[in-house]
Amino acid sequence: MKRCINLNADLGESFGAYSMGDDAALMPIINSANIACGFHAGDPSVMRKAVSLAQACKVSLGAHPSFPDLQGFGRRAMQVSKQELIDLLHYQMGALQGIAYAQGATITHIKPHGALNNMACEDEVLAQHIAEAVHTMRGDLILLAPACSHLVSAGKAAGLLVAEEVFADRAYQDNGALVPRSMPGAVIHSAEECAQRVVSFLRAGAIITQSGRYLSTPIDSVCVHADTPDSVAIARTIKETLEAEGFTLTSLPDMAL
Amino acid sequence: MKRCINLNADLGESFGAYSMGDDAALMPIINSANIACGFHAGDPSVMRKAVSLAQACKVSLGAHPSFPDLQGFGRRAMQVSKQELIDLLHYQMGALQGIAYAQGATITHIKPHGALNNMACEDEVLAQHIAEAVHTMRGDLILLAPACSHLVSAGKAAGLLVAEEVFADRAYQDNGALVPRSMPGAVIHSAEECAQRVVSFLRAGAIITQSGRYLSTPIDSVCVHADTPDSVAIARTIKETLEAEGFTLTSLPDMAL
Amino acid sequence: MKRCINLNADLGESFGAYSMGDDAALMPIINSANIACGFHAGDPSVMRKAVSLAQACKVSLGAHPSFPDLQGFGRRAMQVSKQELIDLLHYQMGALQGIAYAQGATITHIKPHGALNNMACEDEVLAQHIAEAVHTMRGDLILLAPACSHLVSAGKAAGLLVAEEVFADRAYQDNGALVPRSMPGAVIHSAEECAQRVVSFLRAGAIITQSGRYLSTPIDSVCVHADTPDSVAIARTIKETLEAEGFTLTSLPDMAL
Amino acid sequence: MKRCINLNADLGESFGAYSMGDDAALMPIINSANIACGFHAGDPSVMRKAVSLAQACKVSLGAHPSFPDLQGFGRRAMQVSKQELIDLLHYQMGALQGIAYAQGATITHIKPHGALNNMACEDEVLAQHIAEAVHTMRGDLILLAPACSHLVSAGKAAGLLVAEEVFADRAYQDNGALVPRSMPGAVIHSAEECAQRVVSFLRAGAIITQSGRYLSTPIDSVCVHADTPDSVAIARTIKETLEAEGFTLTSLPDMAL
Repeated sequence: MKRCINLNADLGESFGAYSMGDDAALMPIINSANIACGFHAGDPSVMRKAVSLAQACKVSLGAHPSFPDLQGFGRRAMQVSKQELIDLLHYQMGALQGIAYAQGATITHIKPHGALNNMACEDEVLAQHIAEAVHTMRGDLILLAPACSHLVSAGKAAGLLVAEEVFADRAYQDNGALVPRSMPGAVIHSAEECAQRVVSFLRAGAIITQSGRYLSTPIDSVCVHADTPDSVAIARTIKETLEAEGFTLTSLPDMAL
Repeated sequence: MKRCINLNADLGESFGAYSMGDDAALMPIINSANIACGFHAGDPSVMRKAVSLAQACKVSLGAHPSFPDLQGFGRRAMQVSKQELIDLLHYQMGALQGIAYAQGATITHIKPHGALNNMACEDEVLAQHIAEAVHTMRGDLILLAPACSHLVSAGKAAGLLVAEEVFADRAYQDNGALVPRSMPGAVIHSAEECAQRVVSFLRAGAIITQSGRYLSTPIDSVCVHADTPDSVAIARTIKETLEAEGFTLTSLPDMAL
Repeated sequence: MKRCINLNADLGESFGAYSMGDDAALMPIINSANIACGFHAGDPSVMRKAVSLAQACKVSLGAHPSFPDLQGFGRRAMQVSKQELIDLLHYQMGALQGIAYAQGATITHIKPHGALNNMACEDEVLAQHIAEAVHTMRGDLILLAPACSHLVSAGKAAGLLVAEEVFADRAYQDNGALVPRSMPGAVIHSAEECAQRVVSFLRAGAIITQSGRYLSTPIDSVCVHADTPDSVAIARTIKETLEAEGFTLTSLPDMAL
Repeated sequence: MKRCINLNADLGESFGAYSMGDDAALMPIINSANIACGFHAGDPSVMRKAVSLAQACKVSLGAHPSFPDLQGFGRRAMQVSKQELIDLLHYQMGALQGIAYAQGATITHIKPHGALNNMACEDEVLAQHIAEAVHTMRGDLILLAPACSHLVSAGKAAGLLVAEEVFADRAYQDNGALVPRSMPGAVIHSAEECAQRVVSFLRAGAIITQSGRYLSTPIDSVCVHADTPDSVAIARTIKETLEAEGFTLTSLPDMAL
């Protein structure tokens, strides 16, 4: 059983006058932050504030790039060519890196957002394009990807360090995909249940599906949500439970990936 | 008299299906390209193509950031706070640097675009904010700024290398500002006249105004336009005239600034 | 003393996944809603929901157009030409009218938003351009404008019906302009104080400034804010106080303007 | 054989400083213009100019709404919900109608753009949603749709007048779909050949496919492209050929649909 574990969250998702998520409350709890890069959320000032908070909390920084779809919050599937995809990833990664660099920080991982992430989990070719785009620009970046997904295998094949994440509050299907939100039991709302699930997964070295099946997999990181009313309470409970169970919470660059 | 001179142009100003400027024809003529960063023009794929062309032509790369105003092509004055300005400069510089880095290139200068540039030439405080933003992120970048402007003095005060540019095809007022396009004689259309003006300026070590006054100033670079039908012919004539007159055309990082 | 008075609020200012204001709680309190048209806030779906809510609450509908500046929430001054301004007003008014029409509703007034509104209050020429744009498209629309502003006089000069509004929670300067938010006492936070101020204004037929001066003016409408935590409580207190004082709350098209 | 025929083109597709298509040259040739509404192309000022040109040329006006994707020119498939789709259609139709109304004009048809149009031709449910959205807002609008497509049948089922169009310069597959541009012979470049094809189609009352099959269908309109170098020449040749062959060129509202 792995003794180090990472907690990550998607932050910096406010935009202009619009607020999303409680970055200030979550940042001290998590170890690695995935920062929106302006295409689905985030603007230059929101990004700078998130970077600054992360630095103060010794949280490692990752780019959280998306399809260009602010109105849809990056959750709508879009058909973009391979080259367009690579270019928009480099643009967004660079933009966040620029802001981080100006603050004396740097980015150490990348995690695609929303529809782009979901599509890449199931589409081997899209996953390869993402991995290739990351490798071309910054071969030293860790790819943070859902355990058991095509994104994991594509990242490894491209020579990237890959951190495999599970979702604390989502039920899994037997094929490793999340149970769609429209299905009963898809989302776990109790903080304690979320925390216990994470411990069970880590103990088992496996995702335990809704039907009770065990999908053996490395688990390096746990994704906690930032955009629900209970986000902070759930994240804190998971953190405290993991520490009580003897795990060491670790930022992504400090994991032995 | 300086024997080295730089030719620069604003390129990468297409967007999606929209074409602007003849990058492929201009790139072999100029020495340094100011690449739009997506806020007034340019998209990630346009930026990548421009970077790639510049590499092939051994043209040095600069960021050409703007107010966020695609519809207005960055030509409309906007009121943004100091912090917003700094953040949007870091974002755009980073985005271009990301794309350049992925191509094995890097940016070596910055030149603000349009209304932002015009305002900074006349507004000392705005000029200081820009210089500060550049210095905070990349103190090694050259600031390419209109000769005799507040942007020049602000850049130097901030400790940046500054390259002073003149416009080949625009008449100057006695205060060093451009004659507004709405006034007679504001724009010089003849390629030969543009070229001769540049030579006269360089020989004199001064901007020669519409009224015949000499404004003594270092001149490091000549800006040629990219978005008029005659752009390529004018640029080529200037280049050939300068070479015939014994000047060495040089990229910005190779200038002795 | 006028016995009819209108309560208006800026609604439909959410965008995509981002929520702003409590439209559902405010709509039953107010009489007229100014609906964002997508340029500073609002998207087609947000607009449709706001129209639908207004219909259910028998609230009259107005367009709330803005400079194109989603990131700045329309609060940043922009320099647009007269023709650009007219065109963007027609576009936004039409867009809301299209959505309203599809719901079986119609718009009956217009109120410019944010920086555009502020600038037009002080800039006679800009105010004339707005009035002209409204008149050209829909001469029957009521222009909802801050009392004592250039927008009021420009609207009347253009032949529009004009409703003059005061702000319940903002202090006024002796020239009729609002006390800037950065100054002490600029914003009144107590619901009761807001309500009493409105009653005093209406009884006096005048804006009472921070220094105690009376600026005699028709007052047709009271603007209540929608985007602060106390918005709903303040709006309800104003409504109840006005009713207790014998005023009849009336939608804009039912006012005798 | 029908003696009346309509020529339509997609116009108003410039944006800000970016020019697309030669509206001024095409408008006198065609009978009906599909005007971009700001989501894939067009801005309020571009739209106003296109409306104004159409009025001067007695060309009937239609909305040409799109997915929100300026960078992709509306050519990238996007997954939007039914309600989002209906709302964005109403928004765009309203926006153009607002601008037209301010010019003393009105819109009389609608033609979806790009990926939205292509998807609706093949996806019966999407086609129904579009037809429903049109019918809800303006049951009197003509739906201009590719002959033999689901959009035609959905429009008729919704009770709309439908005008069926063919493309002058594109080869057809046996199922009525266009031959993809990547295939040989997909695009016909000769103006004469385009014109002769149109005449053959109209004489036959059928689309003649690449393989020589006849797909019997009403043909009410011929779409000419606006965005290629030869657009104007092709459109003019088609117009002159049709007139020489005895057809009367007619705007959509004057067709007997």
